[in-house]
Amino acid sequence: MKKTAPDDIAALPARDRILATAHRLFYREGLRATGIDKLIAESGVTKVTFYRHFPSKNDLIQAYLEQRHRLWMNWFRAALARRDGPAALADAMREWFGADDFRGCAFINGVGEMPEPAVADAARRHKAEMRQAIAERLPEGAGKAEMADMLSLAVDGAIVRAQMDGQADAALAALESMIGKLAG
Amino acid sequence: MKKTAPDDIAALPARDRILATAHRLFYREGLRATGIDKLIAESGVTKVTFYRHFPSKNDLIQAYLEQRHRLWMNWFRAALARRDGPAALADAMREWFGADDFRGCAFINGVGEMPEPAVADAARRHKAEMRQAIAERLPEGAGKAEMADMLSLAVDGAIVRAQMDGQADAALAALESMIGKLAG
Repeated sequence: MKKTAPDDIAALPARDRILATAHRLFYREGLRATGIDKLIAESGVTKVTFYRHFPSKNDLIQAYLEQRHRLWMNWFRAALARRDGPAALADAMREWFGADDFRGCAFINGVGEMPEPAVADAARRHKAEMRQAIAERLPEGAGKAEMADMLSLAVDGAIVRAQMDGQADAALAALESMIGKLAG
Repeated sequence: MKKTAPDDIAALPARDRILATAHRLFYREGLRATGIDKLIAESGVTKVTFYRHFPSKNDLIQAYLEQRHRLWMNWFRAALARRDGPAALADAMREWFGADDFRGCAFINGVGEMPEPAVADAARRHKAEMRQAIAERLPEGAGKAEMADMLSLAVDGAIVRAQMDGQADAALAALESMIGKLAG
């Protein structure tokens, strides 16, 4: 079996190796397009090992979404903290949209391809925490909750637009106009 | 072969019957999840007829996206025309999000599940015309183009949120706040 995982992944315990492979393939190619056989081959584990850790593909999808959620939130909170004021949000999105492997929001994509309630549940938890992280950076005041709702909606709109366009300029320009209008 | 298409579809020419079936299945279950065999069975046509009209699944996907685009734009322009002023946009989204078969934007979902450039091309054309229809209802003025960009972004954010939530209240409330702030 050709092992295509890079060396640093090959050194991980089997479960982490499977998850790292799933993270890369599920995000890049989609949940449905990524078959179990490819996941096993690129993780460099045996079928027995794979199914011991993840009895079904849905189990692996849930573990992937949970990991993706934690990693993305850690990055997002750190990115928002790098700058004061409303511009921090557009800066964070600029950084993400410009990443080589950017292919939209894993949760929006997941809900789009799979009507399964467990995927939508994970997506709602993810978006609720994204909104919470945005709210935490806003000044206290009567309109704070409403502002967090509006900014979250704008961010989701910008994500799907940047993904569709294959480049971020138009999405970021509209997001920055919106942040300026809302926060100004 | 069990024919599951309703009678009014069964009376259509073969090509239209295949397209009507594709429209229903692709939108409801996704582009990848819908197999050729199921499309043929539910269209009530033979394999030979199917492949004569659509030599590959990608040909059918493109025809579906083109049809979906025309139907959606016709509905959207009519919905916007039903009421004056900025509230028409939120009213149109309320009508759509409340439809029994609402499962988000076929183009956002399509881009999320398939990285194929032809799907992204169709999606960009769709969103450009959606933005154009929004712009046509805005008052003339210096900020009109920027406003159309912002409203389009807000609408896309509301679409993915309503789809994820499985109900429209939060998405519509945020969209209405945004329209009020932007147009107010």
